[in-house]
Amino acid sequence: MTSTALHQDEAQIRQLISEKEALMRSKDASGLVSRYAPEIVQFDLAPPLQHSGPEVLDPSGVQGWFATFDGPLDYEVRDLAVTAGEDVAFCTSLERLTATPQGTAESFTLWFRVTVGLRKTDGTWRITHEHSSTPFYMDGSFQAALDLQP
Amino acid sequence: MTSTALHQDEAQIRQLISEKEALMRSKDASGLVSRYAPEIVQFDLAPPLQHSGPEVLDPSGVQGWFATFDGPLDYEVRDLAVTAGEDVAFCTSLERLTATPQGTAESFTLWFRVTVGLRKTDGTWRITHEHSSTPFYMDGSFQAALDLQP
Repeated sequence: MTSTALHQDEAQIRQLISEKEALMRSKDASGLVSRYAPEIVQFDLAPPLQHSGPEVLDPSGVQGWFATFDGPLDYEVRDLAVTAGEDVAFCTSLERLTATPQGTAESFTLWFRVTVGLRKTDGTWRITHEHSSTPFYMDGSFQAALDLQP
Repeated sequence: MTSTALHQDEAQIRQLISEKEALMRSKDASGLVSRYAPEIVQFDLAPPLQHSGPEVLDPSGVQGWFATFDGPLDYEVRDLAVTAGEDVAFCTSLERLTATPQGTAESFTLWFRVTVGLRKTDGTWRITHEHSSTPFYMDGSFQAALDLQP
């Protein structure tokens, strides 16, 4: 595999991950789930431990979550690192959501970690795995660590 | 790349991931960190958002964590799914830790999600990324979801 091909793969993957910023800001649930392959396995911020299959590909779940926020969202993908082979790749990033819960006056900002796994099929990279999380405090409170900053 | 070569890669990666069970049970901190490449980036159960470099490769951090538990640990890797290319791979699993915090009488069991990213260098697969997490409850409590079962 040539370094030019690898460079093109990394550019395609960076584009796919960066698109999330615009899709989140415009609350585009269909656009978000269209980036996933049918075999997607998702480890999400909220329970349960994992989601897979048609449930993840159905935009109504994301739409419902968007509806819990008033007005626009702000979203940022930071420190994106891509490890790409010929047809398998993974990426890591830190991501920021700033949003105002419905019926409240104040917005919150949450930083969390995202790992994405991808496969290339017929020349197109698709997301087959997405793991989003915050750490939690091991101080006896077992609170999610929602106040961390990169 | 032949299917035999891919099969061997997947077998090597499954071996590397499964070794964690024995290494955790014997509290072998040096063995655990020897599986990591120097460029390791870790998103761990506890804060901060990320760890990288020499800090992750130094077994004394893991040793210190092991010391917070009395007696042996029990550890299980379940539902391991491997996506392997020629020299880049990623895996997902659900993992269980059963342990007794020092000075307490009762053990706890924690299920969490693990995503691992790997690169093959000179014929050997090494872990370059490890993301371990629990979800958290979005019910206003913002508690880590430590009671989930697969």
